[in-house]
Amino acid sequence: MRVSKLFGKTSKTEGVDYQIDSHRLLTQAGYIRESAAGRYYLLPLGLRVHDKIIAIIRTHMDKAGAQELLMPTLHPLELWQETNRTSTTGFELMKITDRRGGEFALGGTAEEMAVDLVRKFNISYKDLPFNIYQFSMKFRDEMRARGGLLRVREFIMKDGYSFGTEEQFKQIYQQMWDAYLAIYKDLGLDVDVVAADNGYIGGEYCHEFVAPSDIGESRYFVDARSGEAAHEDVAKVIADDKNSSDNMLELKEVPAERGTTMEDGAKLHGLPMWQQIKDVLYFDEASKRYVLAVIRGDFDVNETKLTHAADAWDLRPATEQEIRDDLGSEPGFISPVGIAKKGAKTGYPLIIVSDASLRTIKNAYGGANKKCTDLLNVNIDRDYQPDIEADIAMATGNDQFVEKRGIEVGNIFQLGYHYSNLMHDAEYTDQTGKREKYYMGCYGIGVGRTLAAIIEAHHDDKGIIWPSNIAPYRVYLARLSSDEAVVQRADELYDKLTQAGIEVLYDDREGVRAGEMFADADLIGLPWRLIISQRTIDDNRYELKARTEAQAQSLDESELMQTLAAK
Amino acid sequence: MRVSKLFGKTSKTEGVDYQIDSHRLLTQAGYIRESAAGRYYLLPLGLRVHDKIIAIIRTHMDKAGAQELLMPTLHPLELWQETNRTSTTGFELMKITDRRGGEFALGGTAEEMAVDLVRKFNISYKDLPFNIYQFSMKFRDEMRARGGLLRVREFIMKDGYSFGTEEQFKQIYQQMWDAYLAIYKDLGLDVDVVAADNGYIGGEYCHEFVAPSDIGESRYFVDARSGEAAHEDVAKVIADDKNSSDNMLELKEVPAERGTTMEDGAKLHGLPMWQQIKDVLYFDEASKRYVLAVIRGDFDVNETKLTHAADAWDLRPATEQEIRDDLGSEPGFISPVGIAKKGAKTGYPLIIVSDASLRTIKNAYGGANKKCTDLLNVNIDRDYQPDIEADIAMATGNDQFVEKRGIEVGNIFQLGYHYSNLMHDAEYTDQTGKREKYYMGCYGIGVGRTLAAIIEAHHDDKGIIWPSNIAPYRVYLARLSSDEAVVQRADELYDKLTQAGIEVLYDDREGVRAGEMFADADLIGLPWRLIISQRTIDDNRYELKARTEAQAQSLDESELMQTLAAK
Repeated sequence: MRVSKLFGKTSKTEGVDYQIDSHRLLTQAGYIRESAAGRYYLLPLGLRVHDKIIAIIRTHMDKAGAQELLMPTLHPLELWQETNRTSTTGFELMKITDRRGGEFALGGTAEEMAVDLVRKFNISYKDLPFNIYQFSMKFRDEMRARGGLLRVREFIMKDGYSFGTEEQFKQIYQQMWDAYLAIYKDLGLDVDVVAADNGYIGGEYCHEFVAPSDIGESRYFVDARSGEAAHEDVAKVIADDKNSSDNMLELKEVPAERGTTMEDGAKLHGLPMWQQIKDVLYFDEASKRYVLAVIRGDFDVNETKLTHAADAWDLRPATEQEIRDDLGSEPGFISPVGIAKKGAKTGYPLIIVSDASLRTIKNAYGGANKKCTDLLNVNIDRDYQPDIEADIAMATGNDQFVEKRGIEVGNIFQLGYHYSNLMHDAEYTDQTGKREKYYMGCYGIGVGRTLAAIIEAHHDDKGIIWPSNIAPYRVYLARLSSDEAVVQRADELYDKLTQAGIEVLYDDREGVRAGEMFADADLIGLPWRLIISQRTIDDNRYELKARTEAQAQSLDESELMQTLAAK
Repeated sequence: MRVSKLFGKTSKTEGVDYQIDSHRLLTQAGYIRESAAGRYYLLPLGLRVHDKIIAIIRTHMDKAGAQELLMPTLHPLELWQETNRTSTTGFELMKITDRRGGEFALGGTAEEMAVDLVRKFNISYKDLPFNIYQFSMKFRDEMRARGGLLRVREFIMKDGYSFGTEEQFKQIYQQMWDAYLAIYKDLGLDVDVVAADNGYIGGEYCHEFVAPSDIGESRYFVDARSGEAAHEDVAKVIADDKNSSDNMLELKEVPAERGTTMEDGAKLHGLPMWQQIKDVLYFDEASKRYVLAVIRGDFDVNETKLTHAADAWDLRPATEQEIRDDLGSEPGFISPVGIAKKGAKTGYPLIIVSDASLRTIKNAYGGANKKCTDLLNVNIDRDYQPDIEADIAMATGNDQFVEKRGIEVGNIFQLGYHYSNLMHDAEYTDQTGKREKYYMGCYGIGVGRTLAAIIEAHHDDKGIIWPSNIAPYRVYLARLSSDEAVVQRADELYDKLTQAGIEVLYDDREGVRAGEMFADADLIGLPWRLIISQRTIDDNRYELKARTEAQAQSLDESELMQTLAAK
């Protein structure tokens, strides 16, 4: 490709102030351009990389026995209703009605579509297991798009779905795990495999493939001893014992002229933060009930853990009005001790979910459900009785569990019978002729986010540094003069390299200074930069520089061809 | 691929009664499965063919200097408003609102998106011309989906957009014309290049690439002498002279107790049909005016031609109430002679559009804008004055212009300045520093419809007959026995062929009769069928049959490999 003809230019003005490196570099180097927020054009350079990533994913999926197909983009809404996901999806589902009144969801993930396809066939045990996948445009009605290709509203995702017995599923899950590791290795991307929460996808367990990065949105903990990693939403918290062997003292109500923060309480009573009870009140819209989370004062509540512990889908903070008027308590002074178990006005029930850490302390203190009144010597079981006790604490890093951040570039989910239970006829015929539900898994990779994560891992202050198997071209051929002899030599070499199957981006622009060409070469980030100038002709040697090296090599033509043809 | 593992089976029950051959065969052979009406899953076999078609299109587009990119699927609606296409598109545009209130169109074609991208760059004459294209999902809110992949509501389209000067456009238009012919040739599809109407795409002229087929929706005429073809919407009609040299006779009003059809009029007066005036009254909602089309009685009005002649976007038939109450005329007795040029109630104007054929007759007859009253000896100019005279007649076939039907599989459009006039900043900087509008073209190919058209052209009563370069696999390897020696031989051959780069669909199913395997092989339609049985081992020769031949050949292994490896 000749730079003079290439659609999509490098820019010194676009995107220079973007905070995220990959966003800035992709924009400046002419790989992407924003349409509306969170929706991008992939320009020719960007699409080439994107296609190469897809090819690598496809190779490994096929090698693992998965079969590619393509599902419709618009999903009949009734399928999503069959699994209750029209209300429970974590991303707002985009919905559309056609002019005949048909309702559709814009596909954000395709579990229902996969099951609906499979149940159209008369599947028997002989057909199991199988694993089908697609590359297709997915839509997420994200409130906040962020950082170029990292969090977008539409993107091409590889999504796969496996069907089989539980036994067969376990094998496929491992195959996908291995395939993903092979994919990210080919892509030059280090990943941690992180146990995570299934969220709106359903099922019991899953693993995220996370590329470590300070700008990533996934926070997780790696066990320094085993190497195993867990997302903050599933990382177990084991609280250290504080004073659990102390004797229980008498419960006391005391006046407490203080503000409403935890710090205010600790200061007023001159007691340690850990001895305080932290109360956080939520409302569960789906089940119409209050959920009071209580936890040791030096801990924070992890809402995902709490949601699971309470068997809820979605929790929102209770309002001041609900706290005062319906529950008769007081913001900043809520207490599990004696709180109304039913709203006075609404009749909505209240459940208390207590974090396991409250078992590590005795004689706690905190509010008394009255303004400016606290309780001292509060003790679990004696003074309040949790409805549910669970680990609902936000994990924090320590010597053993090292806190990391990263970009989630892929995930594999056990779905089990989640969808085959919810959807009718999601069954196969077993050896005895009986109809049995199939056991499922699903497997996703976001192509654009993976592309961005690769840049986050591979760049310097001059630009992108592509791993060679996904670089849009292998060589940046910079022609430093427009003299006829130089042009002729460069044209010849361009043809020769191209014919040898070496992909070349040929900077044939006239009137562009060498420095500008070199800056563009570094920004675009191809593995090799090759210079053709008058000196090339004089010496009959070529100046070749790797993107990762400071120094160029001087090579004759056969050395040049050999170097560029090597893997 | 092993048939025992292949997802998507042949079926003896699904789709057997579908009227369209490609629809029936694609469904029965396991290439596609319907989701909602007009929305299909491409199963693994179907996707393979689809991908091969895409690869062929891409090769020729790239060879012609076009550059691939990928645009967002959701288009900001304001772009479609900028070109007034939210109201004027022939297909209902699908629209969606996100949860932040952003309005989008689901891309059905992407002229505005292409211009919006290009105007983000500072384009100069040095950058021109360029031609950018994509393969992406397109959406059409069709009232009637039809015939499997022939008329669907979502499909992958290759759409390209060229930018340049008028001169440069002409070259690209010819390049695309040639590239399309090369593409369809590679795909084994005969096409006629048919001059057609630009419709809602805009611009002044276009050409459809039409695969001749009796079930096609495009009706067109091929000039037997020049070979040039024209769609019925643009085919010129030159009316034969009837009695234009006759003397004009005196206009006469006569009672006419008759029905309201043309036949009733001819019968009553005992005059030829051609001498009657046919009146068809429309209403133009966008411009709030009546359009009275008048034409020779033996001709029909082509509404597309009429719409253009009247410079309208969309016309609907006038209602009986409008004819009677607003215009004071009478259905079945409308006449251009003395008809009100303005609605009595609404004040909406009326224009008369007269077909050129009315110049070929004298002393015509027809209604008198009164019930049961006709006029005789009506003559143009003397008795009525058309506002517009044009060719608005529906073409019919004859010896020179042969009527054909076919499937529109691609099209190329001159857009000219249509979009650069309507959209702001759709300009480049010329040599003198002046900003000039660019001259555009656009170029589409529907991949799925092309796939279906290929089957319409290549099948027999047993199944599909794929052209070899797009067949999902090259060889159907049928193993007729489950004896160990046969299995081993078949497995070995499968591996050997696969390693030689020959794509094999290996029917390794146990308990399936030879006849059933052969029927599936014919239905799926791969170029070659290869049998492995006990006899193969006994004779050490292979039985190979081309899908297009009745007789098998007996080959030794080296002959076999040679035959299968050949183009």
